[in-house]
Amino acid sequence: MSLDGAYDEANIFGKIIRGEMPAVKVYEDEAVLAFMDVFPQSKGHTLVISKTSRARNLLDAEPQVLETLILAVQKVTRAVRTALKPDGIVVTQFNGAPAGQTIFHLHFHIIPRWEGVAVGRHASGGMADVEELKGVAGQISAAL
Amino acid sequence: MSLDGAYDEANIFGKIIRGEMPAVKVYEDEAVLAFMDVFPQSKGHTLVISKTSRARNLLDAEPQVLETLILAVQKVTRAVRTALKPDGIVVTQFNGAPAGQTIFHLHFHIIPRWEGVAVGRHASGGMADVEELKGVAGQISAAL
Repeated sequence: MSLDGAYDEANIFGKIIRGEMPAVKVYEDEAVLAFMDVFPQSKGHTLVISKTSRARNLLDAEPQVLETLILAVQKVTRAVRTALKPDGIVVTQFNGAPAGQTIFHLHFHIIPRWEGVAVGRHASGGMADVEELKGVAGQISAAL
Repeated sequence: MSLDGAYDEANIFGKIIRGEMPAVKVYEDEAVLAFMDVFPQSKGHTLVISKTSRARNLLDAEPQVLETLILAVQKVTRAVRTALKPDGIVVTQFNGAPAGQTIFHLHFHIIPRWEGVAVGRHASGGMADVEELKGVAGQISAAL
């Protein structure tokens, strides 16, 4: 999908916000939601989204939404660090399918990195084990 | 370098802010500076930094600095899009050397992507041609 276009209410993150699909949640308040990526590029791969905005990407986001999101990203990144003690953390945000975006609801990725461990899709190429994700989410939540 | 440690005043971005080193600038105000990455991963690869903060990464950044930075990132990302018409844009921010950080002054990368064109270091593996960067920077500036 291109950088243009209308927000699709049926996107997966919209469904998660409305409680129509499950998510392994790490943090939630009135404005934002943080939850585990089910196709993690590393252990602890967490997503942060706005619950109020219908922005598809960074380009069409309201300023207030961006401010709130980046502070939530910092909060969760700090918790990821405390909980999992990675050697580094990548924070990234994709705009448009050619940039790697697959869900067209603005989101930030928090991807912990460990020295000598390459990032990549889950070894099986499939979804992560939900019970395993719940364990990691619990560790991160406890560090918030 | 680890995620901990003191801010090193001698880092390259500190020198650019103080005018001790040149940069191909795209945008500047009292709070932020945007300039071309001299080791671009794609045409139009731009960096956005705070001029006032001594944060090394996202973890130790002041909330107000993050708010100002993300709005500047949006502003420059929009200009990159208007000027260069990429198919997608990656916005990313590295924390710690194992995450890809090489300069320990908080910065955001804006990396345009084109369908079918892989990202990567400049073909020569060296620095980009400065005159070429100035041309691209001029296009982006004009779109601000």
